[in-house]
Amino acid sequence: MGADVGNAPLAIVAGDGDLPRLLAEECARIGRDYVVVLFAGFSPDWVTNRPVIEAEFEKPARMFKALKKGGFGHVAFAGGMQRPQLRWTKFDLKFWSLAPKLLPAMKSGDDVTLRTITAIFEAEGMEVIGAHDVLESLLAPSGIQTVAKITKADWVDIKRGLDIAQASGRMDVGQGAVVAQGICLGVESIQGTDAMLGFVADTGDRFRLDPKGSKGVLCKVPKPGQDWRVDLPSIGVGTMVSAAKAGLAGVAVQAGGVLVLGLEETVAKADELGLFLVGVARDDEASE
Amino acid sequence: MGADVGNAPLAIVAGDGDLPRLLAEECARIGRDYVVVLFAGFSPDWVTNRPVIEAEFEKPARMFKALKKGGFGHVAFAGGMQRPQLRWTKFDLKFWSLAPKLLPAMKSGDDVTLRTITAIFEAEGMEVIGAHDVLESLLAPSGIQTVAKITKADWVDIKRGLDIAQASGRMDVGQGAVVAQGICLGVESIQGTDAMLGFVADTGDRFRLDPKGSKGVLCKVPKPGQDWRVDLPSIGVGTMVSAAKAGLAGVAVQAGGVLVLGLEETVAKADELGLFLVGVARDDEASE
Repeated sequence: MGADVGNAPLAIVAGDGDLPRLLAEECARIGRDYVVVLFAGFSPDWVTNRPVIEAEFEKPARMFKALKKGGFGHVAFAGGMQRPQLRWTKFDLKFWSLAPKLLPAMKSGDDVTLRTITAIFEAEGMEVIGAHDVLESLLAPSGIQTVAKITKADWVDIKRGLDIAQASGRMDVGQGAVVAQGICLGVESIQGTDAMLGFVADTGDRFRLDPKGSKGVLCKVPKPGQDWRVDLPSIGVGTMVSAAKAGLAGVAVQAGGVLVLGLEETVAKADELGLFLVGVARDDEASE
Repeated sequence: MGADVGNAPLAIVAGDGDLPRLLAEECARIGRDYVVVLFAGFSPDWVTNRPVIEAEFEKPARMFKALKKGGFGHVAFAGGMQRPQLRWTKFDLKFWSLAPKLLPAMKSGDDVTLRTITAIFEAEGMEVIGAHDVLESLLAPSGIQTVAKITKADWVDIKRGLDIAQASGRMDVGQGAVVAQGICLGVESIQGTDAMLGFVADTGDRFRLDPKGSKGVLCKVPKPGQDWRVDLPSIGVGTMVSAAKAGLAGVAVQAGGVLVLGLEETVAKADELGLFLVGVARDDEASE
């Protein structure tokens, strides 16, 4: 846990997946005051009986007022969130003042959007922290985590997959790629990892030419130069299931640069499916 | 037509699609001696009544002998070809002598494979030429070719799509990308353009957030630094049909760097579907 973060009241801006739930559970466990910010009618099951602020993208003034009133000076963005379809008829004055910065940013890729939203929260006097500042154990450890071992051919795929994922991140396209037998079978775009793995499951078979060759690997790395407080890539139990469906041998992530949502369960699922999971130490700009 | 190529007898190594047929037709039209080389039982409809050499990947000696006997000193690779599944029990002596170079290359991406195969033909004393040396009119012209016009928002997508396709090419991943409303909806990998457009058709709708925003564009560029004699990207009538199915507004290619297989029919199909087709002049390394 970051020393500078301490136990200050935390607003968790909740997106998809398990990450916001894990953060809320961690806050509850250690007795940290927190609130879950839910945008635009989003209401996942796990928020029942948790403190919540309902917010609208078009009305940031109301949200900032509620956060200030509750004494929430820190905010963590957790989980993927679709770019909102904004209804300008609902904009409050605050939104109109933010629009000249925010709207162009939203057309320039994930990274720019998130950096702009971060800047907006900071302009309101809030401190933006990363999910891994709250829960350091979320960061992928280094080394092989599973029973399944990694062959020499797998390592060739891993190296190339990490390089491609990184190049893709540098273009603000995505954070993942699939490589089998040295050949790229998929590059993640806005649809996310599961959609890419579905594409590989549907189309990848006939491009693994050697029936005895490597089955392929899903590789994930953070975007070079990205703000790690927001939008770190993540994997979990579901990733292992999708990777298995895509016929892969395993999953490789940048150690310390990817969130593993439930390491124990994720490794257990990988073991059950016969997949490997490895954290690879990697210079963020290694293949520049 | 390249002046150095002249009318020397030409071997057309035939892959998928329309390109090998167009080359054969052009040779027949201008009275140039030619032969179509078909690998591993591949036998498209259009070769009926055309001169053919049947070849096996594992037996290059036999093929080179037939080419020499026919006086074919020039070769053009035309159309995509899947990486062969090699049966080593069939290798001839020539293949065994090539294997140490060829087999590792085949695991390093398209570009390396093709460069190696080119080198092998050259080592046999053959000159490798590009399809566009035979048929210069195949190269995409510059400017808007269609009735459909291009909006300012389309141009933003085009710029970003060409940049992403180029970055992907630099990694030897692919030569195409789809961008809509500034967001990347697809990066081409080994499965090719049609598979990527199918993916976008299936998954892209909910990521075009502004119903009045740009519908998106397919962008194709040659790989930076690639050997233009082989593996130039191509588009044709089918590309327009797939782009329309993916809900796109049009197609943008690097002028002079992408083959258009049947410009007239391709533009007619684009006009019929209301798509734009544009050739964009572009420095090969513009976004380095």
